[in-house]
Amino acid sequence: MSIAYLNGSYLPLAEARVSVLDRGFLFADGIYEVAAVIEGRLIDSASHLARLERSASALDIPLPLSLAEVEAAQKELVHRNAMVEGLVYLQLTRGAAETRDFLAPADLAPTLVMFVQPRAFLDTPAVREGIAVATMPDLRWARRDIKSVGLLAQAMAKRVAKEAGAQEAWMVEDGFVTEGASSTAFIVTDQGIVTRPYSQAVLAGCTGAALGALAEESGMTLVRRPFTVSEALAAQEAFITSASTLCQSVVRIDGQPIGAGAPGPVAMRVRQLYIDFARRTAV
Amino acid sequence: MSIAYLNGSYLPLAEARVSVLDRGFLFADGIYEVAAVIEGRLIDSASHLARLERSASALDIPLPLSLAEVEAAQKELVHRNAMVEGLVYLQLTRGAAETRDFLAPADLAPTLVMFVQPRAFLDTPAVREGIAVATMPDLRWARRDIKSVGLLAQAMAKRVAKEAGAQEAWMVEDGFVTEGASSTAFIVTDQGIVTRPYSQAVLAGCTGAALGALAEESGMTLVRRPFTVSEALAAQEAFITSASTLCQSVVRIDGQPIGAGAPGPVAMRVRQLYIDFARRTAV
Repeated sequence: MSIAYLNGSYLPLAEARVSVLDRGFLFADGIYEVAAVIEGRLIDSASHLARLERSASALDIPLPLSLAEVEAAQKELVHRNAMVEGLVYLQLTRGAAETRDFLAPADLAPTLVMFVQPRAFLDTPAVREGIAVATMPDLRWARRDIKSVGLLAQAMAKRVAKEAGAQEAWMVEDGFVTEGASSTAFIVTDQGIVTRPYSQAVLAGCTGAALGALAEESGMTLVRRPFTVSEALAAQEAFITSASTLCQSVVRIDGQPIGAGAPGPVAMRVRQLYIDFARRTAV
Repeated sequence: MSIAYLNGSYLPLAEARVSVLDRGFLFADGIYEVAAVIEGRLIDSASHLARLERSASALDIPLPLSLAEVEAAQKELVHRNAMVEGLVYLQLTRGAAETRDFLAPADLAPTLVMFVQPRAFLDTPAVREGIAVATMPDLRWARRDIKSVGLLAQAMAKRVAKEAGAQEAWMVEDGFVTEGASSTAFIVTDQGIVTRPYSQAVLAGCTGAALGALAEESGMTLVRRPFTVSEALAAQEAFITSASTLCQSVVRIDGQPIGAGAPGPVAMRVRQLYIDFARRTAV
């Protein structure tokens, strides 16, 4: 039985419930983080905690725990669930008022929930064979830099991608790829590794940021500029990053093979750089 | 003690809870409706039920009740809470899967919750004196025709409006007013009553649609075209419609008085037309 954390208590996930007045449920007025666990330890944790603080601050939702306490609770969940490999999901909402109103009372107690998702993700068919991506219009709101739980457009995109035989959606705006529905998008060209710069149009991906820095440290060229679907189709390689996939090669976009149609050497190399870094700095 | 409806049961609102895995909580994967009650009866109910069906269909969420059963449950809630004037809130989500995944299992049981909000809204200071509106960029997603619970942009807009001393936000895109954060926007000019035509850029407001039809039936001219903030500032009158306000005059926009700076005759007339219609057709 999976153990979850809810507002200071550890309890079975099946018993973790929130009021129907919770603003996370009524208004998507909340944020989330997903942290990966390898060999029983949180990886890239400081980066996720920093983003948690940024998202909470952007929505002016008070964090009921210090970042150190959040990490301690995450580790306690990993321990209580004896999780070796998987994800720790965290969601913070503005809490439940006594009635529904777009305007929240100022003194609302936030809701903090965490639960684990045991999942072997280091060695999977998607890693070995690569994934297919489908492109589609980016329907999301204008503040994608906030990791909010307003994820309906992303859920719809994932569904459209699945119906197209793809494992991820790449969303396109004004001719340029913004990002994946739940990942950061990269291509490899003669210029080097190309990925979109940070703005309100995309989420600053923790895994992508660390992986990009590692690539540069190891002498590879990282170019931060938007790229088009045509560029991606003509690229030598393409890949995605996220906490839940780390780094996966994209071997088909809209049904067309990318490069050799198999995971490429650059993606494999940066993936390994990231895993080495993650293991080295796990907590 | 307020009585709510949750998945077939009537229970105290304080005990109405959903799993933290509910997709309404995790992904804003749900829709809602707000129906007004006057003299203990639901007004404009068929229109709200039809939109509920459209929204559910747009997201492919099965309605666990027929529309007649939904209305019966709403009436039962009005009765159990002895509500004379107020709102019935309804939310339908895709339900709770066993784990968090953007892709929902096909056989998920949806979550249907309803609760009441007793509130005198027929005779209020906002009706008598009019309200102030603040304009701001429209940050929302591209499918505003779906009445989804992804309302974070709207909640943020209401907060910005409040800080500007206004009771509603008018959202602006490409120079044109789309709509209010929780209402439809109208202005009155030499042309007649002007309001934005339906598209994916706005929600098809039930109250606004009925009120517009009543205005036309009574010989007034209704022009369906987008309007700018400048036009609104120069208008003879401005007003909003929604289930929770019915129709309220907008007497200030961004601090500038509209018309005489007091509720105008057109808004007051169409408001009364709507209330008469609502009383006549209440169920």
